[in-house]
Amino acid sequence: MQHQVRIALDAMGGDHGPSVVIPGAALTLQRHPGVVFVMYGDSALCLPLLEAHPQLAKATTFHHCDVSIAMDAKPGMALRHGRGVSSMWRAIEAVKLGEADVAISAGNTGALMAMSTFCLRTLARIDRPAIAGIWPTTRGESIVLDVGATIGADARHLVDLAVMGAAMARILFHIERPSVGLLNVGVEDMKGVEDVKLAARMLRENDYPNMIYHGFVEGDDIGHGTVDVVVTEGFAGNIALKTAEGTAKQLASFLRDAMKRTWMTRLGYILARSAFHALREKLDPRKSNGGVFLGLNGIVIKSHGGTDALGFASAVDLGYDMVKYQLLSKITETLARDDSVPAHPIEEIEE
Amino acid sequence: MQHQVRIALDAMGGDHGPSVVIPGAALTLQRHPGVVFVMYGDSALCLPLLEAHPQLAKATTFHHCDVSIAMDAKPGMALRHGRGVSSMWRAIEAVKLGEADVAISAGNTGALMAMSTFCLRTLARIDRPAIAGIWPTTRGESIVLDVGATIGADARHLVDLAVMGAAMARILFHIERPSVGLLNVGVEDMKGVEDVKLAARMLRENDYPNMIYHGFVEGDDIGHGTVDVVVTEGFAGNIALKTAEGTAKQLASFLRDAMKRTWMTRLGYILARSAFHALREKLDPRKSNGGVFLGLNGIVIKSHGGTDALGFASAVDLGYDMVKYQLLSKITETLARDDSVPAHPIEEIEE
Repeated sequence: MQHQVRIALDAMGGDHGPSVVIPGAALTLQRHPGVVFVMYGDSALCLPLLEAHPQLAKATTFHHCDVSIAMDAKPGMALRHGRGVSSMWRAIEAVKLGEADVAISAGNTGALMAMSTFCLRTLARIDRPAIAGIWPTTRGESIVLDVGATIGADARHLVDLAVMGAAMARILFHIERPSVGLLNVGVEDMKGVEDVKLAARMLRENDYPNMIYHGFVEGDDIGHGTVDVVVTEGFAGNIALKTAEGTAKQLASFLRDAMKRTWMTRLGYILARSAFHALREKLDPRKSNGGVFLGLNGIVIKSHGGTDALGFASAVDLGYDMVKYQLLSKITETLARDDSVPAHPIEEIEE
Repeated sequence: MQHQVRIALDAMGGDHGPSVVIPGAALTLQRHPGVVFVMYGDSALCLPLLEAHPQLAKATTFHHCDVSIAMDAKPGMALRHGRGVSSMWRAIEAVKLGEADVAISAGNTGALMAMSTFCLRTLARIDRPAIAGIWPTTRGESIVLDVGATIGADARHLVDLAVMGAAMARILFHIERPSVGLLNVGVEDMKGVEDVKLAARMLRENDYPNMIYHGFVEGDDIGHGTVDVVVTEGFAGNIALKTAEGTAKQLASFLRDAMKRTWMTRLGYILARSAFHALREKLDPRKSNGGVFLGLNGIVIKSHGGTDALGFASAVDLGYDMVKYQLLSKITETLARDDSVPAHPIEEIEE
């Protein structure tokens, strides 16, 4: 039997702080009753909220912190003033000290990344951490990484991203060999994608037991769900993610306007309301909330700063899964033995 | 009075060749009766189609070409075997020789770019050409460049892209000082965006008379229409474009499925059909068809290869506008005088 999953929470992160973090954690606890929490934050703000969730309070060890990291703090400043004392730092440090298995924060991405890297350090072969996001597709969900941790990537880093993304996909999608694609542009003979081409060759030659290398994919393959894992460097990955979000908003706005055209379209809208409701539900960003920091000696998850309790709970659930199904050992095993050892089957899922 | 607009057409480009190019050109001729065409292609295929469009035939000088460039030809191969003899090359060459003002092809992008660059050469200060695309937004349309001509861009190149994109926006949107944004990622203190930051400083300091530099924009600002011109290097630009296309397709597919849920949603769909029709029309990719190659000593426009006559006509119309309102001189004037001379008003539009 595995030990309990222990989750460290930065209660002060995000636009709404503990008023979202605490009810969010309570939701996860309902779904996974065995979880225990270590929570860091301002006791004046957090304790009254915790009292309102007695089950959660029982499962939580609370630590008061005097310092919270502002949502617009520069990473360098956050590190200088928040190291050792802030709720964000201490949640991460709990992972380092072995007091928790995963740290979750809705605080500012840059600060969280800087602190996580500083505190946990990167895995032996990994130079720089990455952020992996869950992307809803026509076929279900895919993982896209890096969606914005670092700019640029050489071939080696792209291969590492593939290994880490595949490990995450094995857990999330319960697939033994997830398919992996390298994001590229369609135009032939372009200069500057040498690293992407080289990474493709390495992935093909290494023939990792825990993934199927699919080949290049283009931007439109992401939403189509062509592969389980889309690998790219952080600049293009972040642009892709934000562009998709923008396009979805744009189309929703067009659709709303179109439905108001005539009394007939309005009536049609009323009749088809359940369809629009289903569509909204399908695209609900709260369901795919949570970016996983990969490449560190520990798991850190970034929740969207503006999300509500339901959304925050998704990020906590994600953290739970990553711990329970051993993301870190899946990654390190693959990195260590590389392609020399045959695949081992995915662990049985036991609740 | 300006001289007639003379358009060179590669009749053999695209998935459907002359069967789309010729009716497409005929549509443009109806809208702009003064236009004349120089057409290059296989006479056996083209002449019968031209006969079916007597007005177009009258306005067209036709040149037979033995060679057509395949849609999947490698640029290097296309250049080696198509130089001097192919319909694509000769359309571009017509611009070089002063026999046409713009060349339009629905042929393969890599080959068209290689031939255009080889034949026309880049403008004095420009190292590498770019492709500018028209992007439908919630506020109307924006121009995004580079959507995939070259990978990577230093600060100087990004500034040149801004100048060229702004010149195009002045023509398309009839704005004297279009707003320009540099595409960037939201995370602070990231490495590797130094060129983007430096370009921002140069744009701010240069204070070009024919644009308003807005600042950084993120991926979701593109569809929102935050600025008239979005500037980025070709890899991220191409990923953004394809990702947006993919997202739009994905949402359309979700919407279709949702509308089939129950008899009530089906009925709602029927009643609201005109709304869906309007939405489809608004997002019709044929309307924004046409990528403008910028930075060359001449104008070349790439039409989508799979488009129909209506879509091809959009690309031809775009070429018409770029010639009539003097894209090239707008670009070279700004590049030449840089920021030393005050703005001059946009030319009056005369049909």
